[in-house]
Amino acid sequence: MASITVPIPTNSNEPILDNGQGVIDPDVYFQINESPADLPEFESKLNTFVDFHKSKGSNVVFITSGGTTVPLENQTVRFIDNFSNGTRGATSAEYFLEAGYAVVFMHRQNSIQPYNRHFTHSQMGFLDYLEPMENGSVQVLSKYAAKMHELLTKYNEAKKSNRILMLDFVTLPEYLFKLQSGSKILARLERKAMYYLAAAVSDFFIPSQKMAEHKIQSRDGGLTLTLDQVPKFLKPLVSNWAAKGLIVSFKLETDSNLLVPKARQALTRYGHQVVIGNMLKTRKQTVTFITQHNQKVLSLSQQQMADGIEIESEIIPELARIHQNWIDSGKTE
Amino acid sequence: MASITVPIPTNSNEPILDNGQGVIDPDVYFQINESPADLPEFESKLNTFVDFHKSKGSNVVFITSGGTTVPLENQTVRFIDNFSNGTRGATSAEYFLEAGYAVVFMHRQNSIQPYNRHFTHSQMGFLDYLEPMENGSVQVLSKYAAKMHELLTKYNEAKKSNRILMLDFVTLPEYLFKLQSGSKILARLERKAMYYLAAAVSDFFIPSQKMAEHKIQSRDGGLTLTLDQVPKFLKPLVSNWAAKGLIVSFKLETDSNLLVPKARQALTRYGHQVVIGNMLKTRKQTVTFITQHNQKVLSLSQQQMADGIEIESEIIPELARIHQNWIDSGKTE
Repeated sequence: MASITVPIPTNSNEPILDNGQGVIDPDVYFQINESPADLPEFESKLNTFVDFHKSKGSNVVFITSGGTTVPLENQTVRFIDNFSNGTRGATSAEYFLEAGYAVVFMHRQNSIQPYNRHFTHSQMGFLDYLEPMENGSVQVLSKYAAKMHELLTKYNEAKKSNRILMLDFVTLPEYLFKLQSGSKILARLERKAMYYLAAAVSDFFIPSQKMAEHKIQSRDGGLTLTLDQVPKFLKPLVSNWAAKGLIVSFKLETDSNLLVPKARQALTRYGHQVVIGNMLKTRKQTVTFITQHNQKVLSLSQQQMADGIEIESEIIPELARIHQNWIDSGKTE
Repeated sequence: MASITVPIPTNSNEPILDNGQGVIDPDVYFQINESPADLPEFESKLNTFVDFHKSKGSNVVFITSGGTTVPLENQTVRFIDNFSNGTRGATSAEYFLEAGYAVVFMHRQNSIQPYNRHFTHSQMGFLDYLEPMENGSVQVLSKYAAKMHELLTKYNEAKKSNRILMLDFVTLPEYLFKLQSGSKILARLERKAMYYLAAAVSDFFIPSQKMAEHKIQSRDGGLTLTLDQVPKFLKPLVSNWAAKGLIVSFKLETDSNLLVPKARQALTRYGHQVVIGNMLKTRKQTVTFITQHNQKVLSLSQQQMADGIEIESEIIPELARIHQNWIDSGKTE
């Protein structure tokens, strides 16, 4: 039987570096894993963006969007992926721009993007929207032109005013290094930064040094994979990297009995400001805001759903209010 | 420790239905798994397409493209994915159309598609190619117009002449049911059908009845997954479903020592006509054709690579020749 044997963590209260016997400390993760090759470029773009908006006094939201992958082999053929097209993040980005925010959109490569989302990831391909003209130009078919004109104008306006920065990742280590580095850069904005952690991040991974070098062979019948738990990066994010920012995390569950208890547990454990709880099957209709002293359900009616109203049109104004209170409470400290 | 306990297959030479103790028979797979909801629609579209091309006497290629997913939970949050953007399949489809084939393009949803591939899955989004015009129309930016005009014209021509049919899948069971059903429908074309199996199909899966109902919880430290081997569907495909067609399968490896032996082993085991072997790192430059009595390397020079020549421009004419011989040898039987 093909088998990857990895020591199984048995106790998560182990000391800092425990050689696979428990959950490692986030700091240790960064010491034993290699940073992505494009991290300097990522940092340079983000530094420029943050400097620009610090000088303007803008509120900035750092959105993470889409799922991370966990390679199962060093020369990756197979990987574990998390369910997420990035719809929540991409949709939210548009409403944050409308609410006056500057947006850092850190997304999984090829996941759904703001404005583009209305025309991608559907049954229609890019070229299905277009027609070749006799003069050699190419035009959007007239039946799509009005909507596309409107969205393209908004998108170009956001780009022109330098209010959107697109950054990407694929794997879990890429995501984690960029989350750390990005949060530290955003921290210069202090309370004016919001962290909107909508990405679906893997809970389990196979440490690089324990991974199969080559493609796992299947001739022997079955496969057993033993994965380590990913360190809880929300803890250092809240405590150190982005201590003054407003931090919004998400809980996606399929068992409704677990949703609120797990959301509240996260809030207690990490000490941040907002958990948005959502159920896999109803996430486009209903979300639950869990804050330190409150709990609030935002929901769309069937009529609103039918009219194409998006739940993010309620989520983002609510968050903007919470963020403004957070900024104001910082002034009276 | 969170753990999914599934009996581990220990011997792949077990009898037909062995309750997880070995690799199940493909026929059994279809009995114990539910067919996808859109299978009737898939069949209806394909029947119409095949009837049309049977009456015209066209050669038809059934291309499978992109990777399948294997859900790890019944209400899927996590899944194992195979590395494949679908570049090979999408690129090949264009060259098959140029070679006069009608193309059934059965692809992973949102994977790369013929003609569209030149403008998607890049750093640029859909809207980055467009500009809003004052008269309310939307145009492709002039610097991209010439190339897009040319490709769009080819794409529209293929659609207009009904020479391309787009069909899709996401999960492993969707893929397998559609492969079976599709092959049987194509079999009406006898030797004029080619099966070009470029999809990256999972080797391992967790049978639905053994899967966790809800999202796997991570609180206990680690995760052990035990997966069963996916039945070898090439066997019934070659022997029964598509007995008269020309069948081309792919072997992707990372260890060059395994490439040819494993390709030849597949050919011996299943008795089909062509295996195309390729290495993960050089797959866009070099492939090896392994046929019953021959072995042939097709390769691009560095200069050809630099000029943007694609290896599929060599693969498809070579396959068209092999296919023509296959058709001709059928006439003299």
